[in-house]
Amino acid sequence: MSLPAPVLYPPFNTIRLSHIELVVTDLAASSAFYADTLGLQITHQDSTHIYLRAMEERGHHCVILMKGETPCVNVCGFKVFSESDLDEAEKYFQKIGHKVEWITRPHQGRTLRTHDNMGMPIEFYHHMDRLDPIHQKYKLYHGVKPLRIDHFNYFSPDVDASVDWWNNLGFRTTEYTADEETGRKWAAWMHRKGGVHDVAFTNGTGPRLHHLAFWVPTPLNIIDLLDLMSTTGYVANIERGPGRHGISNAFFLYILCPDGHRTEIYCSDYQTVDPDLEPIKWDLKDPQRQTLWGAPAPKSWFNHGSTFKDVPLKKSTLAAQPIIAP
Amino acid sequence: MSLPAPVLYPPFNTIRLSHIELVVTDLAASSAFYADTLGLQITHQDSTHIYLRAMEERGHHCVILMKGETPCVNVCGFKVFSESDLDEAEKYFQKIGHKVEWITRPHQGRTLRTHDNMGMPIEFYHHMDRLDPIHQKYKLYHGVKPLRIDHFNYFSPDVDASVDWWNNLGFRTTEYTADEETGRKWAAWMHRKGGVHDVAFTNGTGPRLHHLAFWVPTPLNIIDLLDLMSTTGYVANIERGPGRHGISNAFFLYILCPDGHRTEIYCSDYQTVDPDLEPIKWDLKDPQRQTLWGAPAPKSWFNHGSTFKDVPLKKSTLAAQPIIAP
Amino acid sequence: MSLPAPVLYPPFNTIRLSHIELVVTDLAASSAFYADTLGLQITHQDSTHIYLRAMEERGHHCVILMKGETPCVNVCGFKVFSESDLDEAEKYFQKIGHKVEWITRPHQGRTLRTHDNMGMPIEFYHHMDRLDPIHQKYKLYHGVKPLRIDHFNYFSPDVDASVDWWNNLGFRTTEYTADEETGRKWAAWMHRKGGVHDVAFTNGTGPRLHHLAFWVPTPLNIIDLLDLMSTTGYVANIERGPGRHGISNAFFLYILCPDGHRTEIYCSDYQTVDPDLEPIKWDLKDPQRQTLWGAPAPKSWFNHGSTFKDVPLKKSTLAAQPIIAP
Amino acid sequence: MSLPAPVLYPPFNTIRLSHIELVVTDLAASSAFYADTLGLQITHQDSTHIYLRAMEERGHHCVILMKGETPCVNVCGFKVFSESDLDEAEKYFQKIGHKVEWITRPHQGRTLRTHDNMGMPIEFYHHMDRLDPIHQKYKLYHGVKPLRIDHFNYFSPDVDASVDWWNNLGFRTTEYTADEETGRKWAAWMHRKGGVHDVAFTNGTGPRLHHLAFWVPTPLNIIDLLDLMSTTGYVANIERGPGRHGISNAFFLYILCPDGHRTEIYCSDYQTVDPDLEPIKWDLKDPQRQTLWGAPAPKSWFNHGSTFKDVPLKKSTLAAQPIIAP
Repeated sequence: MSLPAPVLYPPFNTIRLSHIELVVTDLAASSAFYADTLGLQITHQDSTHIYLRAMEERGHHCVILMKGETPCVNVCGFKVFSESDLDEAEKYFQKIGHKVEWITRPHQGRTLRTHDNMGMPIEFYHHMDRLDPIHQKYKLYHGVKPLRIDHFNYFSPDVDASVDWWNNLGFRTTEYTADEETGRKWAAWMHRKGGVHDVAFTNGTGPRLHHLAFWVPTPLNIIDLLDLMSTTGYVANIERGPGRHGISNAFFLYILCPDGHRTEIYCSDYQTVDPDLEPIKWDLKDPQRQTLWGAPAPKSWFNHGSTFKDVPLKKSTLAAQPIIAP
Repeated sequence: MSLPAPVLYPPFNTIRLSHIELVVTDLAASSAFYADTLGLQITHQDSTHIYLRAMEERGHHCVILMKGETPCVNVCGFKVFSESDLDEAEKYFQKIGHKVEWITRPHQGRTLRTHDNMGMPIEFYHHMDRLDPIHQKYKLYHGVKPLRIDHFNYFSPDVDASVDWWNNLGFRTTEYTADEETGRKWAAWMHRKGGVHDVAFTNGTGPRLHHLAFWVPTPLNIIDLLDLMSTTGYVANIERGPGRHGISNAFFLYILCPDGHRTEIYCSDYQTVDPDLEPIKWDLKDPQRQTLWGAPAPKSWFNHGSTFKDVPLKKSTLAAQPIIAP
Repeated sequence: MSLPAPVLYPPFNTIRLSHIELVVTDLAASSAFYADTLGLQITHQDSTHIYLRAMEERGHHCVILMKGETPCVNVCGFKVFSESDLDEAEKYFQKIGHKVEWITRPHQGRTLRTHDNMGMPIEFYHHMDRLDPIHQKYKLYHGVKPLRIDHFNYFSPDVDASVDWWNNLGFRTTEYTADEETGRKWAAWMHRKGGVHDVAFTNGTGPRLHHLAFWVPTPLNIIDLLDLMSTTGYVANIERGPGRHGISNAFFLYILCPDGHRTEIYCSDYQTVDPDLEPIKWDLKDPQRQTLWGAPAPKSWFNHGSTFKDVPLKKSTLAAQPIIAP
Repeated sequence: MSLPAPVLYPPFNTIRLSHIELVVTDLAASSAFYADTLGLQITHQDSTHIYLRAMEERGHHCVILMKGETPCVNVCGFKVFSESDLDEAEKYFQKIGHKVEWITRPHQGRTLRTHDNMGMPIEFYHHMDRLDPIHQKYKLYHGVKPLRIDHFNYFSPDVDASVDWWNNLGFRTTEYTADEETGRKWAAWMHRKGGVHDVAFTNGTGPRLHHLAFWVPTPLNIIDLLDLMSTTGYVANIERGPGRHGISNAFFLYILCPDGHRTEIYCSDYQTVDPDLEPIKWDLKDPQRQTLWGAPAPKSWFNHGSTFKDVPLKKSTLAAQPIIAP
């Protein structure tokens, strides 16, 4: 199987990934992690939810923490260009036989909820409450100084199928890992907003969230976070890194929240707006695709992920031993 | 005069700024500056031209140095989404009465040349020769380690008129400076590619190029360049900075090449892909819009620019004393 | 006049500069500046004094803020190697005819107070209260994340005489500025602790404190402070920088506290423990000695300083126009 | 066994560690590593030796590469304060029954060769050829931009005995790891020059060199080196890091040269000139002493070291399973 031809004129115009709703068991513990340690800003909180944004974002939220019994992911959200794109999206998903519903989400306008080909719940909206800029309110910066949500990375039991499905929505592949012998893809990075990815898929039991990611300006922000976490009781929440991915060229760190949801802190990236940008193919046997500098990832990084609420899991259609690219 | 409503569905789809052709008087001296000192990579050179690209770019050139008698700018280039956008562009410019011609530019496909409302020569193309990635060939990195061309900044004798004209091409305003009393704009930053700007206009005799800009990852790259330039005979070519602009939040440095063309080295920026992103308005009387940290710019920075080949200059329609935002 | 031969075996062993007592008019305003903004840690405060230390220091204080009517400097403190060095110091100062007295300073052991040849009050001590390390308590880090006090810089009306006097105490010159024609020194940097300087002298009406300085690890700390100060009401307190000195190779920033005392934030430096380290001589006519990158310092930087309590000023014995090196 | 009282007035005055002579099997391969990749500057080379210095050093050499059949370490060198200290050193070593000899080393003055209590060859000198500063010749900077040699770290079969012996030479302990139950020391860091260490000892078969170390200004220099090494054929020479040691607070990277000699690249450190600086004790069971951020070191890091020429090895007197602190 080869890379599908990119769909340059998709059925509706998705601008970018936007937000995620995570179910957590202890809002206070999660607030200590995401707000006090990572440095996200709380924009609204009540007894059941905390809404957060990063420092350059003017939309109301990029992460919603919802109190629940069992940690999981409720939904991943995407912003479309205009209201009419929402209506086009509804038509498209109905046409391909995916259930759609219009839901009410506080601080968002009309919101269309559906799911991808693996059953992963996703929602699309056009308008979210806009907040005053805090980009230059430097007194508020702390933790890793997160600037914006950058991407979602998912375990998919069939990466080829995931890439086809999201490609049809206009997500273009920037880099991918393939098995030279079978041609099967083991991982792929796909974007809408002009960076390396809005969504990525890696081979494994799924659908599950592997991680959400935030963009920070320099590796020193990541080093500051490591120093902070390792001296405030979070050393066991540091899972992998710091390091440089071969794929995407990102300087990365992976950390786990108290409920085990994984966050990547990410800097470096490159501009991908050219529609004729050639996807970079990595050989499954090249270890530098994962870590340019050679250090291996821990096992948990290959196995652990967050399930989606009420979404059944399927095993990977590839080899029994998952070899997952970052 | 207020900010025009953004044209969200322009007559043709411009992806991003792409390249500039600078006329220089001494190719060897220019190569020492742009390649050996700044760190751009030479992709082609002959007795009359040097083509350069930055480290993450796969297109053949972002700067063309052309040997000539008198330093000036020949043209600024922009990349469109697809070949059909070129044909739509031709129709559009003909409709608004601008002369168009199809030109041959080495290493580019079909290229449409025209001019903006101030007479500034611009060209549009769809395809440029694609080169192998050097993004991870770290042995090649030197100088300021420039990653990509970021924007053009122009002197315009009528910023309101420039903003209207480029807005009609789909360039959206992200930040602008206005006179509270008259409502006239003194400067504006406009983008296509999802950053703060592809093009910017500042009040002054024009059209002239104020500067071209390259994106680098961290302020330390800029400090490295300052150390290098100040100990290799280029201390007089350092014009302004380092500093932080209030507008755009950029950490900046301005330098002049041996022929006086100004380059900005630029890091920090923010994502502007949301079509409902609110433009930030700065008061003409707020000095922090230019330098957040308070240090004034030198006079040359307000007065000096590069003329376009054979394009007559007009004086600004605003006050005699130019007060130019960055 | 040439550089005096370094006194390698001084009459007593001074280890390093240690602390300064600044008179300030408003303790709350000073606390907001030195503790909340710069990031020094308060180790003791009462109605008349605030004691501060930097992040890697285990001694009780490097800065003492004392409430008073008129801003000035009370004293600069130095640490000696052992208690017997204090007794040797007493003998030495008595021998050269300088008044000495044993004073009581909270949180310090026996403390000997005297003055230098220009009348500047100085004190020597052997033991100061030792505090638990906070070097790895990263949660406490904020502001510019100051690691340690680095040096004092003074205006001297006769730099040659100052250098001779401090050289006799074992302070070794690392760099100096001299007038090629007359041989007179205009500035000198002298150390005990193995860096470029513990004390420096620059030509001008004195004795006055030009600045005290803190060491930080990277230029990014300084950029963070600039962003913070410029968005929390301290933009007018930013006096000069950021930049690189030719002399000392320091990346610097100069800021003024609410009472006008100047602080340098300083990174980079080099090791000077070799007793045969050759002092670097800079020509008074070389502008890069002050700013390697070429930007001039503002006038205030050459003229403004803090007087010492009850110490009369003398005009410089050099030319009427002070040309002061950093 | 507890920490010995520091010897504040040693028999002779050692200023700092100075240089090392490494036997390598292929001078060209070593030059590619130490000069072209790490960025040390060659000060002299002939058919059998290469002399190198770091960027801020004015002494002729900090590393001597000597061609030989079998990789090993010939000697570690230390600089003393004055020529008379050399004579005092001779007396001292004779008194304690260590063989001494005056040797001739090119580019050095009188040089006294002896060995420590474990048999490790060491040499002391007063004068080395002084070279012009290149500290501000920024065009020469490349690789990791090493500023100066920082320390030697050794495997010792009896750390308690090593600490006692070097303490008698005036090396003061700044940090150490001890077994809470037995009181035995497993590792110790000892300094003369005012940083965390000039020499360190870790438990293991010895004497062997664990690593030599270079000081660089920021973690970004280390990241640059990782990117360079991993894309120029040296990915297998990256052994451990980047990370932060709990002990010393250093941001570190460990790499291996083509002959297996280990180099640490090191930034951060703290000033230790106070004679009453309290040594920091780390519990052998605290994993954060090795890596503050929690990632374990690879096995090779605990086992592999460079032997000294013709010096027999002894096994550790501690437990069979070496648990070595950084």
